Amino acid sequence: MPASPIRKLAPYAAAAAARGVKIYSLNIGQPDLPTPQAAFDTLHSIDRKVLEYSPSDGLPSLRRKMAEYYGRFGIEVSPEEIIMTCGGSESVLFAFLGALDPGDEVILPEPAYANYVAFSKTAGARIIGLPSSIDSGFALPPIEEFENCITPSTKAILICNPNNPTGYVYSREELEQIRDIVKRHDLFLFSDEVYREFCYSDKPIISALQLEGIEDQTVVIDSVSKRYNECGIRIGALVTRNKQLHDAVMKFCQARLSPPLIGQLVAEASIDTPNDYLEQAFGEYRRRRDFLLEGLNSIPGVFAPVPMGAFYCVARLPVRNAEDFCRWCLEEFSYNGATVFMAPAAGFYTVPGMGHNEVRVAYVLKQEDLAQAVDTLRAALDAYPGTVR
Amino acid sequence: MPASPIRKLAPYAAAAAARGVKIYSLNIGQPDLPTPQAAFDTLHSIDRKVLEYSPSDGLPSLRRKMAEYYGRFGIEVSPEEIIMTCGGSESVLFAFLGALDPGDEVILPEPAYANYVAFSKTAGARIIGLPSSIDSGFALPPIEEFENCITPSTKAILICNPNNPTGYVYSREELEQIRDIVKRHDLFLFSDEVYREFCYSDKPIISALQLEGIEDQTVVIDSVSKRYNECGIRIGALVTRNKQLHDAVMKFCQARLSPPLIGQLVAEASIDTPNDYLEQAFGEYRRRRDFLLEGLNSIPGVFAPVPMGAFYCVARLPVRNAEDFCRWCLEEFSYNGATVFMAPAAGFYTVPGMGHNEVRVAYVLKQEDLAQAVDTLRAALDAYPGTVR
Repeated sequence: MPASPIRKLAPYAAAAAARGVKIYSLNIGQPDLPTPQAAFDTLHSIDRKVLEYSPSDGLPSLRRKMAEYYGRFGIEVSPEEIIMTCGGSESVLFAFLGALDPGDEVILPEPAYANYVAFSKTAGARIIGLPSSIDSGFALPPIEEFENCITPSTKAILICNPNNPTGYVYSREELEQIRDIVKRHDLFLFSDEVYREFCYSDKPIISALQLEGIEDQTVVIDSVSKRYNECGIRIGALVTRNKQLHDAVMKFCQARLSPPLIGQLVAEASIDTPNDYLEQAFGEYRRRRDFLLEGLNSIPGVFAPVPMGAFYCVARLPVRNAEDFCRWCLEEFSYNGATVFMAPAAGFYTVPGMGHNEVRVAYVLKQEDLAQAVDTLRAALDAYPGTVR
Repeated sequence: MPASPIRKLAPYAAAAAARGVKIYSLNIGQPDLPTPQAAFDTLHSIDRKVLEYSPSDGLPSLRRKMAEYYGRFGIEVSPEEIIMTCGGSESVLFAFLGALDPGDEVILPEPAYANYVAFSKTAGARIIGLPSSIDSGFALPPIEEFENCITPSTKAILICNPNNPTGYVYSREELEQIRDIVKRHDLFLFSDEVYREFCYSDKPIISALQLEGIEDQTVVIDSVSKRYNECGIRIGALVTRNKQLHDAVMKFCQARLSPPLIGQLVAEASIDTPNDYLEQAFGEYRRRRDFLLEGLNSIPGVFAPVPMGAFYCVARLPVRNAEDFCRWCLEEFSYNGATVFMAPAAGFYTVPGMGHNEVRVAYVLKQEDLAQAVDTLRAALDAYPGTVR
C-alpha cells in the first residue's frame, strides 16, 4: 500500500520543527474549530454503570436522529437504512467489502482522497482513476471518458462530493450524468458526502440519495465526527436503501461487534447543535477560502480554482515536481523563521504523472496564519531553484 | 459469511421475550460487572476544546501505560511495539491483513471465536480448523495433528488463550509445543489474549510474547475494553516485535486514521484501576464458574469440562442437535415462566459435524440467576422429545 501523501513528508516537518522552524500546516484535514459544547456536556453527564457494546448497526436513537437529520435536507431515509460506523473510514471499507468482489473495478474521478485506494485493496478491488483537470476547475470528466473506463469488471463509481482534495461540488447536471451511467451499466454509486455542510455555493448540495432511478444502487458514506469537529470520536454512517447490500455490510458490522458507544452518545447530542454553530463554522471557512484563494492566485505562476466546498483546494505551482518543492520547503527553506507544509497532490491521483506540479492546501488555519503562510509560499517560490516561470 | 451462532437464534429469543417468557441469557459475552469508576471520572473531567484525531497507533501516553501493564506480567515490550486498535476485533483484522496474503492458511485449534473466520475471509485467507476434544477438556490437539495440517500455504497458527468458548488455558508445555512448530515451519503465531486476567488456575498465565525463539514471529491480540467491562469503548491492542509486520499493520491503521480518542482516555485511566477491582471480578467469576459447572455436571447426560479461564464453558448435552434444542428452548419451552438462551457450539467450529451436541454457556449472570438457569435447563432436557440418555 502506498504511503499517504501527507505521511511521507511528516518526518521532514518534524525535523524542521526540531530545528525551531515554525510550520504552517496546510497539509492536514484536522479542523481547528472547537467541538460543540453539547459534546462535552454529554461526556460530563454520562450516568451509566456499564459502558457496554451497542448494537452492531449503532444505537437506535442515533439512527433515528440521523434519519431526521437527512430529512432536513429533503433526503428521505429510514433508520433501518442507516448503519453507524467507526468513522467515515469504516463506512468506505464496509461499502467496498459489502458490494465488491475481488477483481472488481471502481471508477473514481481524480484527484481524490488517497485512502480509498487502501480500502479498495483490502476488498481485493481496484480503483480506476479518471483524472479531472485543474484547468476546468476539476469539473466532472466528460461522460464518454467514464464510458471508456467501463469493462466487464466495473462494479461501481465512487465520487466524493464536496471533493477532498479539490473542494469541487457536483452540479445537478453532473450528478444526473453519473446517475445515467450508473443506471445504464447497472453499477453501484458510492458517494462520500462527509463535507456535505461545508458548501459555499448558493445552490443546495444534492445527495446521491436524491437521484431518481438508482435508489437501489446508491450508497452514501457519511461522517458525523468530521462535521462537528470531533474527528476523534470516530462516528460515521453508511446509508443504503439496498436491503441485500445492507445485510452484507451488517455481516462485517457484526464481526467487529459494535461502533464506539461514547462516540455515538456524543454524536447524537452534536446533531442537535443549534444551526448557528455550523453557520459560524461555514462562515469562517468561507472567509478563509476567499482570503486564501485570492492570496494563492496572486502569486506569479500559481493557479488554484476556487473550491465550492470542503476546506481544501488544489493549487498548481510553477515547479516541475511539487513533492520535491514541498520537501525543500521543509528541509532547506525558511522565511522569517517559518515555512509551509503542503501535501503534494500526486498522492491524490492513481494515474501516474498526474498532479506532479500540484499541491493540496487545507484552510484549517486562522486567517492571520493563512496570510503568513501565503507570504511564506510566495517567498519560497521566489527562492526555490526549481521555480519555472 | 456465516451468521454467528449467537445472532442466528436472536429472533427466537426476541419472540419468546415478546410472549412474556423470562430469558436467562447464557449466550453472550457481555460482562455484567460494573465499569471501573475511573472510567466515568475520566469522562466527567474531560477538559478539551477539540476532540481531535489521535495518532494512528494510539496516544503515546496510553502505549507507555500498556507497556508498563505488560511489565507487571513479566512481558517486556516497548511502547513502539504496541499499536492501539478499535477493539480486539480490529487487532485481529489488522494482524491478518498485515501478515497474510490471499490464499494463505491459518491453523486454528477449535472450537474458537466465530468471528476469526469472518476476519480471515476479509484478508482473503483461510482458517484451517483443528478440533480439540471435549473428552480431553479441550486440551491442545496432539502436535502431529498440527503437522498434518501444514501445507505450503500455511502461514500462521492462531490460538485464543484463555479460550473463547471453552475457557481452556494452555500450559507452558503446550505453548512450547506450539512454539516449536511455529519455529520449525517459520510461521506467525497469533495469540488472542483478551481474557488474560480471567484465569482461575494457580499457575500464572503465559503470554505468547514470553515464548523464546519466536520473538519476531509473535503477534498478541489484546483488549483493554473487555478486561474492564467497558466493551463499548472499543479499545484493543496489537503487540508485535516484528518491525516489518508492525509497519505493514500501520498502513492499515493510517488508512482508518485513528482509534477512538475518548475510549483511549478511558482505557488509560482504567489500566490504573486498583488491583482489587480485577480481583473482585476474578473472585466473582470463579464463584460463578464453580457453581455453574457443578450444576451443569449434575444434570444427567450433561458433561462440561471445568474451564480454567474466561467466562465461558462448553457443555455436551444429551441431544442429537444442540441448535435444534436451543431453538426449541426459545420457541416451545418454559419452566416457571422462564427459559434459557444458549449458543449452539457448532458455530464455533469450522469442521462440519463438530460440536453438534455442544453449547457454549457464558457465566455473566448473577449466581441466583445461574441457579435458576441450571434448573430450567434440567427441566428442558427432561421435557425435550429429542433427549437421548
